[in-house]
Amino acid sequence: MGFWKSLFSNSDTVAGSRGGRGSAIAKDPRSSDPRANDTRIVFSTEREIDLYELEELCDAVGWARRPLRKVRKALQHSFLVVSMWEQRGVRRRLIGFARATSDHAFNATIWDVVVHPSYQSQGLGKALMQYTIKKLRSEDISNITLFADPHVVDFYRRLGFILDPEGIKGMFWYPD
Amino acid sequence: MGFWKSLFSNSDTVAGSRGGRGSAIAKDPRSSDPRANDTRIVFSTEREIDLYELEELCDAVGWARRPLRKVRKALQHSFLVVSMWEQRGVRRRLIGFARATSDHAFNATIWDVVVHPSYQSQGLGKALMQYTIKKLRSEDISNITLFADPHVVDFYRRLGFILDPEGIKGMFWYPD
Repeated sequence: MGFWKSLFSNSDTVAGSRGGRGSAIAKDPRSSDPRANDTRIVFSTEREIDLYELEELCDAVGWARRPLRKVRKALQHSFLVVSMWEQRGVRRRLIGFARATSDHAFNATIWDVVVHPSYQSQGLGKALMQYTIKKLRSEDISNITLFADPHVVDFYRRLGFILDPEGIKGMFWYPD
Repeated sequence: MGFWKSLFSNSDTVAGSRGGRGSAIAKDPRSSDPRANDTRIVFSTEREIDLYELEELCDAVGWARRPLRKVRKALQHSFLVVSMWEQRGVRRRLIGFARATSDHAFNATIWDVVVHPSYQSQGLGKALMQYTIKKLRSEDISNITLFADPHVVDFYRRLGFILDPEGIKGMFWYPD
């Protein structure tokens, strides 16, 4: 993960800011073919995402479909929207996504973290989350929270997230 | 709590909407003195709250002070701000508060729930939360979440909140 570390430690590689057209571009560390220079992993905070492409990504991990009208509204009103792309030449494919709600001051909550199954177990989920945390920290958000499914608790723990700190418990209310 | 039930079941008693000047006015069920008709518990979603009055309320329950500049920003960018007042004639006192962040579509997270110690154990915390839930539901938010300190987990459970549903865990990330 030395590659990613160098990407994240150099803020100059990230142009723009929240809601802008900022993106971080990097060579794909997984590629070893002669066209390696044409393959990049790109992060973006641009929120004008093709909703059908996002739906396809969420389908790939088996998430229940949601009305696109509501997804559009949720993206508009998220504090941060992060997308991760595999770029080959001028073509790019959405391979990861995360977003966060926030009060713009104290708290942010990360939702909808997804990495396409074909791109999992290669450090890209970690890279996506580190990029997301870095963006939230750059906006002076100190309390970053999320609700983790049981099988990803350890993934988030390795990223520095603490489970039930001081006994604080996540609770959900659903309509009847 | 029959009194509150009738308040909450009649949406006509709640004027206005999110971000507006909506408030619900009701006689204080605790009062038994001859001036009872002058005492009301008032709920409001008005977000222009006197920050010093809010700070005083938070001081009363022993919360750490926060920069007013950031509190103002957090209130501006909260999806819902609910305040609870005791009103006697034209004078009113801030006795409770809650706010929620949201993506305006799927999820809301409730923060900073506080009831003044002199007004606790009288059903007012429950009333405050029921009002907050009702407001979020009226905006079509279905997934209402919060992070509960250990000593209030049962309070939220009685309101219908579920602890770690399907093993989903609340996690926190703090800066070093």
